[in-house]
Amino acid sequence: MFNKLCIIGVGLIGGSIARAARQCGLSKTIVGFGREGDLPNLQTGKDLGVIDDYCLDISEAVLDADCIIMATPVGAIESVFTLLKPYWNEIAIYTDVGSTKGNVIAAAERVFGYVPDNLVPAHPIAGAEQSGVVASLDDLFINKRLIITPDKVTRPDAVQKMREFWERLGTQVAVMDAGHHDAVLAATSHLPHIVAFAMVDMLGHKDEQSEIFKYAAGGFRDFTRIASSDPTMWLDICVANKNEIMPLIQQLKDELDKIQQFLDSNDNQQLYNTFTYAGKARQRFLDLFEN
Amino acid sequence: MFNKLCIIGVGLIGGSIARAARQCGLSKTIVGFGREGDLPNLQTGKDLGVIDDYCLDISEAVLDADCIIMATPVGAIESVFTLLKPYWNEIAIYTDVGSTKGNVIAAAERVFGYVPDNLVPAHPIAGAEQSGVVASLDDLFINKRLIITPDKVTRPDAVQKMREFWERLGTQVAVMDAGHHDAVLAATSHLPHIVAFAMVDMLGHKDEQSEIFKYAAGGFRDFTRIASSDPTMWLDICVANKNEIMPLIQQLKDELDKIQQFLDSNDNQQLYNTFTYAGKARQRFLDLFEN
Repeated sequence: MFNKLCIIGVGLIGGSIARAARQCGLSKTIVGFGREGDLPNLQTGKDLGVIDDYCLDISEAVLDADCIIMATPVGAIESVFTLLKPYWNEIAIYTDVGSTKGNVIAAAERVFGYVPDNLVPAHPIAGAEQSGVVASLDDLFINKRLIITPDKVTRPDAVQKMREFWERLGTQVAVMDAGHHDAVLAATSHLPHIVAFAMVDMLGHKDEQSEIFKYAAGGFRDFTRIASSDPTMWLDICVANKNEIMPLIQQLKDELDKIQQFLDSNDNQQLYNTFTYAGKARQRFLDLFEN
Repeated sequence: MFNKLCIIGVGLIGGSIARAARQCGLSKTIVGFGREGDLPNLQTGKDLGVIDDYCLDISEAVLDADCIIMATPVGAIESVFTLLKPYWNEIAIYTDVGSTKGNVIAAAERVFGYVPDNLVPAHPIAGAEQSGVVASLDDLFINKRLIITPDKVTRPDAVQKMREFWERLGTQVAVMDAGHHDAVLAATSHLPHIVAFAMVDMLGHKDEQSEIFKYAAGGFRDFTRIASSDPTMWLDICVANKNEIMPLIQQLKDELDKIQQFLDSNDNQQLYNTFTYAGKARQRFLDLFEN
C-alpha cells in the first residue's frame, strides 16, 4: 500500500500503527521520527522491530515517504506542521491521530495559510493508560472505531486511501465534519475524563483519603480508571476542545443540581426515574458497543 | 458455627451468603424467608441448593434460628424489624448487609424503642450489577472488605461471632462507628454511583445520543458501569444517607467549577496539576486495593 511510512512520534499509538501496518504488510519500510530527547524510545522501537529505523532529522525522515502519520500529543500538532512545512510533499498523504480534530485543521491554516489538500485528519478511538513504544500493541485498533474528518478541500482519493489503510488495520471507519467529531467526543470521552480526574482529585485532598481509598471497591476502580490517563495528553485535549467541553461541564453541574434538589425535597420518584433512565440509556450504549 | 441460619431476602447478597456459608460448613441448616411475591425466587434458591428450604411465615422462618441475616434492600429494614419484633429472640444474633448503617440503627430504635444488644449491623463491600438468587456466587466475598458497625450497646460476643463468621467467608473485617462508615462510603461508593447515573442520564437525553454512544469506547464503558446498578437499591441508599451524600455532591460541583475556571482562564498549569494529582491519588488507591 505504501513504500515508506514515516511516523512522527513513536509512542503507544504511533508504535501500534507501525506494528499493525507491518503485520498487515501495508508498507515496505516504516521509519520513526523524534526529537533528541526521544532517542531512547526510538532506539527501543527499533530494537523491538516496531520500526525499521529512525531519524532525528525531519528532512531525512520524510524523504520519499508516501504516508506521514503525525502521532504526537495533540498540543504539538502546530509545531509538527512547522517542522514539516519546508519538506511538504504534494504527492504524499499526511494524517494524524489526535483526539481532537478542529484544532488540527486550525493549526494547519495558521502554519500554511491554507489547509493542504493532502492532509487527512483522523482519530482512532483506541488507547490505554500506558504510554511509550513499549506499550504499543499489534492489535490495538482491531474492532475499534476510527473517525476521518476531512476539510472541504481534502482530496477524496487521499481520504479513500486512509480509509482503506485503517480498515485493513481492523477499524470501523466513519467520516464526519471535524466540529461534529469534537462535539461527540467531548460528551463521550472528554467530559468523563474530566469528571474522573475531578473526583479523584477532590477525594485525594481529603484528610481521610487513606480510609476512603481503603474501602473503595471494584466499582470505584472502574469508575476512576480513566483518571490514571496521561495528564499532559489530557491537558492538550482540554485546551484544544474547551469550547465543546465547557458547556458539557455546565450541563453535568446542572444535572447534579437536579439530583441535589430531588434529594433535598425527598422526591424519590424523580430520583428513581433518573436512575432508571440512566440504566436504560447505558443499556443502549452497551448494545451499540458490543456490536 | 450455627445450627440454623435464617436469611431474610434471598437475592444476590443473601444467596451468596447462603452459598458461601454452606461451602464453609458454617450452618447445619439454611432457611430463606420472603414475601408471597418472592416465591419463584425462593423456589429457585431451593432448586439450586442455595437454601435448604424457605418459609413465607416469619414465625416459622426464625424458629430456632441462632443467626438471622437481613439481606433485604436498604429501604426495607424498618419493615423487616417490625416483622421480626414479635419473635425477637434474645439468644440469636441478628445482622444485616445494608450499604448504609446509620439508618439501620435508627430504624431499630424506632421499631423497638431501643437498639437490641444482639443486633450486629454489617456491610460486605461486594456486589454486582445483577440481582436475584440466580446471580448469587460462592466466592462473592472472598478478599472483599466487610465493615461491622456496632452500636454502643451491642454485645461484644455477638460482634466477635459475626467477625469470625465473615472472616471464614473470606472477608477482611473492620469495625467502626456507623456514622463514620456512612461518611466513608458516601465518598467512595455513593457519590460515584450518583455521578455515573447523572452523566448517563444527561447524555441519554441528548438528541444525538445514538451517535454519542456509538463513538464511546472502553473508557466510557468502565466509567459508567455502575450506572447499570439497580435503581431501587440506589434510591434506598441515597435516601438513607442523604446527609452525607449532599455535601459531597456540592464538593464535586465546586471542583468542576474550579476546572471550568482553569479552562476559561487558560490556566494550563493548574489543570495539569489537578490531573497529575488525581493520577497519583488513584495510584495510592490502587496500591491499597491490590493489597
